Amino acid sequence: MATTNVALQPKRGRPSLARASAIDRVILERARDMFFADGFDAVAMEQVAAAVGISKGTLYARHASKEALFTAVTLDMIAQHSTEAARFDHLLTDDIEQRLRHHARMMVNSLVQPDVRSFQRALSTVQHRFPDLAASISEVGYRYMVRIMRDDIIAAAARDDIPVRDAEGVALMIVSAIGGYQLYETSTGKLTHEELQAHAERTIDIAMAARSSW
Amino acid sequence: MATTNVALQPKRGRPSLARASAIDRVILERARDMFFADGFDAVAMEQVAAAVGISKGTLYARHASKEALFTAVTLDMIAQHSTEAARFDHLLTDDIEQRLRHHARMMVNSLVQPDVRSFQRALSTVQHRFPDLAASISEVGYRYMVRIMRDDIIAAAARDDIPVRDAEGVALMIVSAIGGYQLYETSTGKLTHEELQAHAERTIDIAMAARSSW
Repeated sequence: MATTNVALQPKRGRPSLARASAIDRVILERARDMFFADGFDAVAMEQVAAAVGISKGTLYARHASKEALFTAVTLDMIAQHSTEAARFDHLLTDDIEQRLRHHARMMVNSLVQPDVRSFQRALSTVQHRFPDLAASISEVGYRYMVRIMRDDIIAAAARDDIPVRDAEGVALMIVSAIGGYQLYETSTGKLTHEELQAHAERTIDIAMAARSSW
Repeated sequence: MATTNVALQPKRGRPSLARASAIDRVILERARDMFFADGFDAVAMEQVAAAVGISKGTLYARHASKEALFTAVTLDMIAQHSTEAARFDHLLTDDIEQRLRHHARMMVNSLVQPDVRSFQRALSTVQHRFPDLAASISEVGYRYMVRIMRDDIIAAAARDDIPVRDAEGVALMIVSAIGGYQLYETSTGKLTHEELQAHAERTIDIAMAARSSW
């Protein structure tokens, strides 16, 4: 079993803000490890509480259901990936090709993280039972990438004075081509970072060469 | 429980070829329904045999393991979709745009079948445990579509005297964009045939407009 974090040892009275925040962190990390290793159905709230070293009541006070806990784990993981990706935003110029390649690379970097495949597997078994969860995840992952690219395409149309008919359609094609390749290729377990990167660059090549039809 | 097919009622002696073939068919259909409804792990070979009305020994003589049975179910389903798709091949001309649109439409028609989502869910929970199964399925589904488009792109390059640098990359982009959109959008359970069709057409628009960079 996982060891209990020293910062979480019970003390008298109400926990300090720092301690409450440390508990939140450990809950998310332990729950993530357990969900990803064993799948949503195999993990009980009681086991998560035990692994963290808190009572079931304390866990339920923070996450009202296992679905809510899984949602929190997911949003936390995506927030971490987004923070990592945003570290490079200052490198962006006004060139639409460079911007799209940058976003595509950040998407590739996220998709090749080791926890992403575990997460996709854990999610695929529960998403039809929890449509709200699936919608939240889609909103902060897939749709977030589509919006970033769409907005860049619209801004570039104004800046470069090249009209765009369907910016969202172009963004959707790029994101679905990169994400679809990752999903299909990892189903046989053999995708490397370099292969996904090359596919993403090829997709941007084709999208850019088709700019007149955007 | 499922009713037993009359054609499968036990008779004395060795089954006729027709009867053996009827048994094969019923096994695949019953097993498919059970795998898709309950998932790979929840279905036991004994339950499949009981639902078909044959002995466990008879089932194992045809499919040596549950994984082998699931593989047979999958290949049978894909063969049915392929036969359906091939019914329209005589409509194909020598125009590469028309051919790519045709293949994209056939792919869309397959992906919107009601059993495809059930199958993708059943598969996603087992594919990392059965890499050979995942590889077979990828070969007859995803990679099959990529090969068809790639070969058409290469043939069109010779016919139209327009050189192509990376036919496989173009085919991969089209197939992954259509398939990725289907996987991402159905995760929130709201994709219509019309939406997937429009996305596929948009993807072909962009690919065709970029032909000089193929």
